[in-house]
Amino acid sequence: MKNFTFCVPTKFVFGRGAELQAGALIREFCGTKVLIHYGGGSAVRSGLIGRIEKSLSEARIGYVKLGGVQPNPRDTLIYQGIELARREGVDFVLAVGGGSTIDSSKAISHGVCYDGDFWDFFCGKAVPQRTLPFGAVLTMAAAGSESSNSCVITQESTHTKRGLRTEMNRTRFAIMNPELAMTLPPYQIACGATDILAHIMERYFTCDREVDLIDRLSEGAMQAVIRAARIAVKQPDNYDAQSQLMWGSTIAHNDTLGVGRTQDWGSHQIEHELSARYDVAHGAGLAVVFPAWMRYHYSKNVMRFAQFAVRVYGCAMNFENPEETALRGIEAHESFLRDIGMPLTLNELGARSEDIPAMAAKTKTTNPDGTTGGVFPMTAADIEAILRIADR
Amino acid sequence: MKNFTFCVPTKFVFGRGAELQAGALIREFCGTKVLIHYGGGSAVRSGLIGRIEKSLSEARIGYVKLGGVQPNPRDTLIYQGIELARREGVDFVLAVGGGSTIDSSKAISHGVCYDGDFWDFFCGKAVPQRTLPFGAVLTMAAAGSESSNSCVITQESTHTKRGLRTEMNRTRFAIMNPELAMTLPPYQIACGATDILAHIMERYFTCDREVDLIDRLSEGAMQAVIRAARIAVKQPDNYDAQSQLMWGSTIAHNDTLGVGRTQDWGSHQIEHELSARYDVAHGAGLAVVFPAWMRYHYSKNVMRFAQFAVRVYGCAMNFENPEETALRGIEAHESFLRDIGMPLTLNELGARSEDIPAMAAKTKTTNPDGTTGGVFPMTAADIEAILRIADR
Repeated sequence: MKNFTFCVPTKFVFGRGAELQAGALIREFCGTKVLIHYGGGSAVRSGLIGRIEKSLSEARIGYVKLGGVQPNPRDTLIYQGIELARREGVDFVLAVGGGSTIDSSKAISHGVCYDGDFWDFFCGKAVPQRTLPFGAVLTMAAAGSESSNSCVITQESTHTKRGLRTEMNRTRFAIMNPELAMTLPPYQIACGATDILAHIMERYFTCDREVDLIDRLSEGAMQAVIRAARIAVKQPDNYDAQSQLMWGSTIAHNDTLGVGRTQDWGSHQIEHELSARYDVAHGAGLAVVFPAWMRYHYSKNVMRFAQFAVRVYGCAMNFENPEETALRGIEAHESFLRDIGMPLTLNELGARSEDIPAMAAKTKTTNPDGTTGGVFPMTAADIEAILRIADR
Repeated sequence: MKNFTFCVPTKFVFGRGAELQAGALIREFCGTKVLIHYGGGSAVRSGLIGRIEKSLSEARIGYVKLGGVQPNPRDTLIYQGIELARREGVDFVLAVGGGSTIDSSKAISHGVCYDGDFWDFFCGKAVPQRTLPFGAVLTMAAAGSESSNSCVITQESTHTKRGLRTEMNRTRFAIMNPELAMTLPPYQIACGATDILAHIMERYFTCDREVDLIDRLSEGAMQAVIRAARIAVKQPDNYDAQSQLMWGSTIAHNDTLGVGRTQDWGSHQIEHELSARYDVAHGAGLAVVFPAWMRYHYSKNVMRFAQFAVRVYGCAMNFENPEETALRGIEAHESFLRDIGMPLTLNELGARSEDIPAMAAKTKTTNPDGTTGGVFPMTAADIEAILRIADR
């Protein structure tokens, strides 16, 4: 196990009716004037925003509202949010939604405390030093943004999607009521489950040795998420399945399943190019990219991919030919994704073969030598080859 | 999954040489005058206390020292610690040791901020409202006190061992260097592993349904801890095995593996009577009590005990007779405990048959109706029967 630091100070309030505690929680974290930030009208129509307003009013906390967050959240709305928050003297930001809304709220919170352009944080020009406190009412299990140190924003004018990792990105609290996810369409639930699994898998496919504890935890989490996803896409009102997915989304991305090991994150970087260019759901993009990434790299660490096949999907180990077992695991994962209604090819996503070289060239490099990915560093040629695998 | 709140704000700094960050961490948490609290002379002789003193001096932080914490930490030393801390104007307590030292430090920290007798918190007369901030340098993987909300103290004059659960019990930081555990005798390592497993099992043997995610995580953690314990008792200098145990001790007891379910904790209450009366190691007492508790209760939830047998110990499921599988799991756990050198009987612990009724009568009740245990509530007669099973 490698040296690590781990700190997730978020207070999680999980269960039925949890959103009614919003006012009390904001008071606990000293908020007096809140920006309620949300996405489409469904949060309003469902009565969720109304219940939160009531909770805030009962706690004698003022608020303003800003809706309209889109999937792959845009810089344009964030500039509006920063201006609104400054004008209204907001001292706490409350995200009501999924990962996109929470990420948009994080960017607003950092931006309010920064004199320059908040995009500086995302293009590497500056590092956030201060932020407004912010919390989340989660309505969708997917991104794990409710307690991760991540935030991903799209610059609308350039179709550039960039992430920011900093401990400033941790929410003060996360209100998690699985009932709120029951109204999601099955496709969205499936995208969420795919994202959750991808967050675990980016950490799981390490080449580090002697990481048994986190391996076992991760395998257990993947088994539970796979089982719950199969149920939830057919029965969105199944509270228990939604519960496993919602708590799963949190532990999948707050590094509970990632400490002490080299992680990859190459597939996420490739997917960012897909969703920035075609505005597809992040989970759907990952369903296309991840299996292709696995097929491209598995031969470099056959035994780990075989371990995945055996322990997560219950494949029989072929001791004479572990490579065959590794491939069975990738196929099992593809079958699962297909079963829950995810695309597996660029074509199904609406992506074009002719864009592959440009996407490969634009994928963010994460290593000093210009490659991408912590475990299996990839050149643009590698990324192009992976996208070609997905172009079937 | 039941409603829950979860918050573990502790900052974990894990890995080789981590103790050298003590000074910087205390400064981060605004400590200026520290009580370094530790156990026997080994922490001094090994040079660990010296390295920490150096780290504090480099950060220009003053300190006083108080050693002498014994296993099953005593109220008597805690009174000394409170007096010393007040006299010296201490504003931060640093525990250097295992669970006993950390628990003693928690009690001192609470006691300094309380006008009455700190034992009030442990006998239910008062609830701590304030505490000095405190951190830990962990030297032994076992109690999980480095991030749990628990603290257990023994009143020396009455041989009464009582626990306190409060969010005030969370450390500000935990420094965890697995190298520090390498000098422990194998018996201590085995006691620690037994305690870790017991913390998971108290949470695992629930009768709640639809708790798949936490079940899978718990089963994974148990598998990893069992494997690491077998290695570490034979090779105490195996860094990787010690790493799995040390991080395992933390997640086993900070509720990462317990949220959203009814937990039991009856075995712990019974064990407290053993260690208070005979001053045996907590882990050794649990090795005797837990299998007896399992044998007494398994028939009330056969399928869960069969699940434990199959998923944790790899027993074959007997579909015609799940009860047989459940028993194979208990036997497998006993074999494991025996393999790592743990006692399985009261006799091996040095406990006397004639004390059984008194211990059963004295075991702390945890339910309003006078019974003990959250999942399988026990009367004194039940506890006596369990101790009789262990009296073989």
